[in-house]
Order: sequence, then C-alpha cells, then structure tokens
Amino acid sequence: MVLDLSQDVVALTAALVDVPSVSGDELVITELIEGALRAYPALDIVRDGNVIIARTDLARAQRVVLAGHTDTVPIADNVPSRLDDGWLHGCGSSDMKSGNAVFLRLAHLVGSGALDPAVDLTWVFYDCEEVAARRNGLGRIAREHPQLLAGDLAVLGEGTNGDIEGGCQGTLRAVITTAGTRAHSARSWLGVNAIHLAAPVLSRLAAYQAREVSVEGLTYREGLSAVAISGGVAGNVVPDECTITVNFRFAPDRSADDAVAHVREVFDGYDVEVVDLAPAARPGLDAPLAQALVAATGTEPRAKLGWTDVARFGELGIPAVNFGPGDPNVAHKPEECVAVEKISAAEATLIKFLS
Amino acid sequence: MVLDLSQDVVALTAALVDVPSVSGDELVITELIEGALRAYPALDIVRDGNVIIARTDLARAQRVVLAGHTDTVPIADNVPSRLDDGWLHGCGSSDMKSGNAVFLRLAHLVGSGALDPAVDLTWVFYDCEEVAARRNGLGRIAREHPQLLAGDLAVLGEGTNGDIEGGCQGTLRAVITTAGTRAHSARSWLGVNAIHLAAPVLSRLAAYQAREVSVEGLTYREGLSAVAISGGVAGNVVPDECTITVNFRFAPDRSADDAVAHVREVFDGYDVEVVDLAPAARPGLDAPLAQALVAATGTEPRAKLGWTDVARFGELGIPAVNFGPGDPNVAHKPEECVAVEKISAAEATLIKFLS
Repeated sequence: MVLDLSQDVVALTAALVDVPSVSGDELVITELIEGALRAYPALDIVRDGNVIIARTDLARAQRVVLAGHTDTVPIADNVPSRLDDGWLHGCGSSDMKSGNAVFLRLAHLVGSGALDPAVDLTWVFYDCEEVAARRNGLGRIAREHPQLLAGDLAVLGEGTNGDIEGGCQGTLRAVITTAGTRAHSARSWLGVNAIHLAAPVLSRLAAYQAREVSVEGLTYREGLSAVAISGGVAGNVVPDECTITVNFRFAPDRSADDAVAHVREVFDGYDVEVVDLAPAARPGLDAPLAQALVAATGTEPRAKLGWTDVARFGELGIPAVNFGPGDPNVAHKPEECVAVEKISAAEATLIKFLS
Repeated sequence: MVLDLSQDVVALTAALVDVPSVSGDELVITELIEGALRAYPALDIVRDGNVIIARTDLARAQRVVLAGHTDTVPIADNVPSRLDDGWLHGCGSSDMKSGNAVFLRLAHLVGSGALDPAVDLTWVFYDCEEVAARRNGLGRIAREHPQLLAGDLAVLGEGTNGDIEGGCQGTLRAVITTAGTRAHSARSWLGVNAIHLAAPVLSRLAAYQAREVSVEGLTYREGLSAVAISGGVAGNVVPDECTITVNFRFAPDRSADDAVAHVREVFDGYDVEVVDLAPAARPGLDAPLAQALVAATGTEPRAKLGWTDVARFGELGIPAVNFGPGDPNVAHKPEECVAVEKISAAEATLIKFLS
C-alpha cells in the first residue's frame, strides 16, 4: 500500500482514518507517511522511532513547523471512515488525521514544486499523544533532538474548527494532606478528625476567585478545582488522614514556579505536595508570522483552554498555535467526524499563508 | 471431652479459651456448654442454633439474665491459653470467656444446690457477636423468641474490669451527598464542583459542639464524626458528586428517631441518607436489682461508651448492664489477657449479689 499525497485532501483524510493507529500501534501509519514523503527529493527525511520529520532547505529567512500526532484513541466501531452528506466520520477524523492530511497535502505541493513557500518548512508527525506524557513522541524529540524542531512558528494541527487558538494553559496538580489522630468514634474526643481538619481547605477552594487575564490580546481564565478527596479508615474510626487533590489551570503570564508558589500561598499552613506540573505557553501572536497566519484564516484568534503540545514548543522558545479543521467537541467520541469543507478550507488557508 | 463446671473459675476460663470459637465456628464450644448444663436437672435447657439458654424455675419474684457471647475474633497465634504471673493470656480470655466462665460457675453452684439464689436466673450463651449485626445470635433470639430473654435485669459479661457499665450509646451512620455538574477542569467555570460544595458540611462538623449529658446519674458524651469522604472522577474533571459518611454516637436520652432528626437538622439543606441506626440503651441503674448489683461490686458505675448488646435488652424493655472481669483495652489484640484475680472477684461479686 502506498499513500497517495496527490489526491484530494478529503480523500487523503479518509485514507489516513482507514489505517488504524491507536496509541502504541503507529508503525504502519508511520511507514506509510515515511514512504510517501521520501518520494520528494526536495525533502530531507529523518525517522526516529515512530516519529517522521521532513524539512525543506530553501535558505528562507524563516521556518514554520507543521506538527501533528498520528495516533488516535481506541477505535469504537468507527473505522473505516464513512463519508456522509458533507461529513467524514471515523476514529481520528477530527483528532487529528484531517490536520495531518492538510499538512501532507502541503508537503506534496512543496515537494512537487507546485507551491513555492515564502518560508522553509518542517513537518513533524509523531506518536503517542493520546497517552501518558512520557511516551509522547514530540516530547522525546524536544528532549533528545531539539534542533530538529527549530523554527520561528509552530502550527499544531489539533482541531480548532479552522480558527487559531493561541498558547495554552499550564496545569498543576497538588495533593493537600491533613493529619489527625485515630480514635474509636464512640470516644471521638480522644482523636483528631483529619476530615474535619479539611474544612478550611474546601472553604478556600469554594471561595477562590479565579483570575481572567489578557495575554498578548487573548483572554485566559484560570481555575482551581478539587478533583479528588479521600479519607476514612472504617465506619467506627475517627480518621487520621484526609487528602485533597487540586488541579490549578493557569494562564501563560505565570511561570510554572509562579503557579506552584500561588498554590502554596492559597493553602498556606497545609501540607502541599505538587504531583504534576506542565507549564503554560504564551500565545505568541505578536510574532509577524503568527499575525500572517491569523490574517490568512480571516477569523479572530482565541485563547486555548487546556494543555496541548504547543507548550512543548513554548518551552523551546518557539511561538506555537493550534490550527486544524477538526472539531474538539467530538474528539474521543464514537461519533467523531469532521466537516469536509473545513478540511479544504484549512488547506486553502495554509496555502495562502505560505505563498 | 466434657467441660467440668466444678473446677476453679480461672481453670474454667482457660478450658474455654482452649476451645477455638472464632465467629461462625461456635459449634464445638456450644455443644460443650450444652452438655455441661444438661447435667443439672434443675435447669431447663433450650438449644436454638448455636445459642444455649438455661433457666431456673424457682418461682422467685424477679429474674436476672446472665448473657455472654461465645465467639472470638480470629486467633492470632494466641491459643491455647497461657497462665503467667497472675495473668491468663489467650484469644477470648478477656472478650469474653472469663465472663462466660463466671456465669457457668454460677450455673454449677445453683444447679448443684450449693447456691440458693434470691432470684430466678436465665443463662444465655450466644454466637456471632464479633461480626455483622444480622448474624448476632442474641439478636435472633430477641426477634424470634423474646420470651426466652424475659427478666428484670440483664447482665452482659463483656469486659469492664469488674465495674458496672450502664446502658450504651446509640450509633447512627448517615451519608451526606453533594451534587454538582461535571466539566473539564480546564474550563472549570462550566461545572459545579461537588467537593467544593462539601465545604459547609465539613465546617459544620468541625464546629459541632457535642453534648455531655447525665442520664440516670451516668455521664454520656456524644460525638459526631466524619468517618469517610470520597469524591473525584479523574485528575482533569470537575467532580459531580462528593459523599461524606458521618457517625453520630448519641446518649440514651435520645431515641433513635430523635437522633435521626438531630443529624438531619445539623445538615439541613443537604441530602442526608441514614444507612445504619442502632438505638442507645438507658443505664437502668435506678432499678433496685441493678442498685443491688452496683452495691455488690463496691465501685462507682460508669456510662458505657460504644454500642453493645445491652441495647438489645433495652429494646425489650429490660434494664441491662455490662459487668465482666475482662479488660476492654486488650480485646481484639494478640496480647489479649485477663487478670486472674478479676475473674475470681467477679465470681464473688455475683455470688454476693445473688445470695
């Protein structure tokens, strides 16, 4: 089987959906993409595990990175794809094989000489985005070969309905523990109830006023949420421990360290252990290249709420945005689909941007 | 094997400890006790499952019930018994085979004519006290044959260090549930956090002022404790449910219904589901017979904190107290033991009381 990049972008999306690539099982799709890209002598190809990187070397002043993950969540009886009344259905259609199809079409246009881009281009197709962060292929390249990701703007093909979503929130998880003294509940005054001691922790959470902050013209809304609480030994025992796990989603004007300090301040006086921390990414929309991409879409950019791989570029100092034809509301659902007109429109937008 | 009730009460305790009788496995000890009691023609014997009831029929004006459970918690390498420097060690030595030995010695003295009691007597030896309440042998008799438990005072041989402990606390368990709306924690403002909603529930628990109340001369201290809390869906989800389990231990001046009403009042405005309820028992120390027992011990009676089977007699309208040579602090522990002088003293107290 050969992947034909000269076909229509919707047909190419369908072809990608028809190759199962659940996280951890990206070998076949990676080899198909590698084979297709190696057909263009103008592209330098690097294969690293199940990551494929293709680069032009046109000596342009600036370089744009187009990045997409090839994996999907588990298939839910929704492969192969199905085209129905302007919608392409199937696992990964929205998240994010339609974005990959757009990027691969650009590789064909540039590789075949049909499009002479104003910038150099790097394509990155990577594995294991839908699973634990430590397996993420883009993360591995960022750690081991960051020079391969160098550029002036990165575009991630995650579904944004064809709009630009800038930057991303940071996320911090912390466990707050209260410690008491066990006792039989028939003699509760002999103990110290750790669940009762958690009352002020929950009160602070309930009273917390989250910031809404503008960063480079985009509005980010923060949030501090309890995501778990647990305590109790037995039905007749005053418990000696209660743990509350909180998740702080923070705007890109805070560094990861600032976020930790803020959470420690909110829960001052309590035992706070940070168990997970991923930095936010600034939207980077003040860069001229990003402005040009925004202009090409013709719509207003939005802040990205949620953590995405743009933050990996942010950590390398590369402005990065999300831009893809998919619809995030149907991602990870059996009814996942994408509007075919959004796929074609995204291709047209990027052609316009790169010309 | 025959159980010899004519032997010294300490030796008899040791003999009982040496017969394993973990809850659910009381057949052997029940048959030994039954065989021993059937040797006395003056006693009417009823066997019902693994419950043995023996009764005198002396046409006395009043009747005292002596009740003890024959089961123990699981053996922890502490059977057979071991006598060491005034202490008898072994599983069930304190809880409550020493109490049973005292009661069986009285059966021997009365059955053999050595003691002419001032009251009629009923002995009840029952199974499955250490496990789920629905399996409790005394509870079954109280439901199915309450006339067999009739009397003017019941004495439970649970360990009290040889003092009188009157009545018992009631216990109520309730689950308080807060209901919110799930959302992604990156967009927490779209949800309602059920754990945050639990803040006032914990605040009320932390601020709760428990009563200390005198009932028939004994002081009971109440307590309202969270014994469990649980909530959370995933590390990135605003949870839609949080449950708090509370345990209310209440004094015998409250009925079970009063206790329910009180807990509902404390958590007014919240969803409160009562999941477990056992009434308190009044100490009954105003009854002349109980006064006589107190006088025989020569010590001050105390309130019983914790729920015990005296409440089952309380529900039948029979005053009931705990009185036994065991030490409640070593019950259920591998190092369980009982002071031999306490066993002999308890026997002497009951002989004095019944004479």
